[in-house]
Amino acid sequence: MSGAPQPAIILVRPQLGENIGKAARAMLNFGLTDLRLVSPRDGWPNPSAGPAASGADVVLERARVFESVAEAAADCAHVYATTVRKRGVTKPVITPEIAARAIHSETGGSAILFGPERSGLETDDVAVARTIITVPINPAFGSLNLAQAVILVAYEWSKHEALASPPITDLGAPASQEELDGMIAQLDAMLVDAGYFFPPDRTPVVRRTLRTLLTKPGWNAQEVRTVRGVLSALTKDRPRGQARESKASSS
Amino acid sequence: MSGAPQPAIILVRPQLGENIGKAARAMLNFGLTDLRLVSPRDGWPNPSAGPAASGADVVLERARVFESVAEAAADCAHVYATTVRKRGVTKPVITPEIAARAIHSETGGSAILFGPERSGLETDDVAVARTIITVPINPAFGSLNLAQAVILVAYEWSKHEALASPPITDLGAPASQEELDGMIAQLDAMLVDAGYFFPPDRTPVVRRTLRTLLTKPGWNAQEVRTVRGVLSALTKDRPRGQARESKASSS
Repeated sequence: MSGAPQPAIILVRPQLGENIGKAARAMLNFGLTDLRLVSPRDGWPNPSAGPAASGADVVLERARVFESVAEAAADCAHVYATTVRKRGVTKPVITPEIAARAIHSETGGSAILFGPERSGLETDDVAVARTIITVPINPAFGSLNLAQAVILVAYEWSKHEALASPPITDLGAPASQEELDGMIAQLDAMLVDAGYFFPPDRTPVVRRTLRTLLTKPGWNAQEVRTVRGVLSALTKDRPRGQARESKASSS
Repeated sequence: MSGAPQPAIILVRPQLGENIGKAARAMLNFGLTDLRLVSPRDGWPNPSAGPAASGADVVLERARVFESVAEAAADCAHVYATTVRKRGVTKPVITPEIAARAIHSETGGSAILFGPERSGLETDDVAVARTIITVPINPAFGSLNLAQAVILVAYEWSKHEALASPPITDLGAPASQEELDGMIAQLDAMLVDAGYFFPPDRTPVVRRTLRTLLTKPGWNAQEVRTVRGVLSALTKDRPRGQARESKASSS
């Protein structure tokens, strides 16, 4: 058993209660119990989930519901997004096998996002994650359902449970999603203030680019605080006498 | 791709057509196409199989039916039996991972037996096999269904195939030292301007902290340019009418 806590399985906008039950069953087979649901389509609890869980009721009973991916992953330092296709987001793409190794060796909690049955994760969901997990699959026939994706990830994770944890180099766990989001919001407000987002129709893409860029470092909590201090310093009125081209009216 | 032929998946006395379809889907996801059925309960073809296969029709069309395990595996040099529990048969028990490696390294064809949904393989079926495959599973909750057992075995097998190579995402090499230094210098000038470095005797330490933090991401050249654009935007005079209240959105 490694020192890392077990990863949270986050189902994002799952459609059928039956599939939530199947995912719970897949999880418990490999010892995972932390199930989180983001805006399940048919509400929660869902009477179809229990029968499909085939006895994994403990997972369903402990399941927590959130309104957004960010809230669901707020306490997690490492967020992984599972996708089958390549997305317009530039992030590292790894296999479940590599992800399992990473989750066991890293400090701080992990979360793994799974998208809705039909469509998979949206680009904005993927943007929250630092890393993408893709199951290498038959290029001529890729048809993994939700519970199958969950079981493959859970299975890989379980392989490391009996093994000794490797020596850990403590770079400090990446800050939690909540801390990261706070920093991004602070910068965003400053950029709105500065008129950076122009033209308006480009704004969502630019925001995503910034989020990707700021998620990439994996800054720890102290580093995020430092960045926020830098941003605060840049927001304050400039000290007298050090003005470059700043106008009196803006001080 | 190894030289060994792909293993045959032999479903022994499967009960539901739906589960045969799901097994076919699980197989094709990982490139397996040789499905063999021993005495399917409801005969063959089975109208429930097609819809459950979700497009893996080619596997169902090629499926062959046999009357006994021995006939189904007649052309195979290596027969593996999947079981969840220990049986009254003394044979080596290995994981799907080890089995996949063996199948790829051995000469001669392989077959993997999967038992009926309810009961699993009988002792006489297991007796045909030389080796037992058992998925290491939560001892407190072992509840793998037929298609899940097939998918885990197929997944492990596929890891040694060409399709198992993970997709490569080009994140771009980190920016050159010169580009990085240019970005750091730009921020540094802004922070001097803002009176951030105080007290003066702490300045070298703070500068080193910032450099470490900005080196950590490994931002590529484009990302460094984006950051410099952000910094430039924050240096400019604020556009008229955009007050600080817009910060309300930050946490």
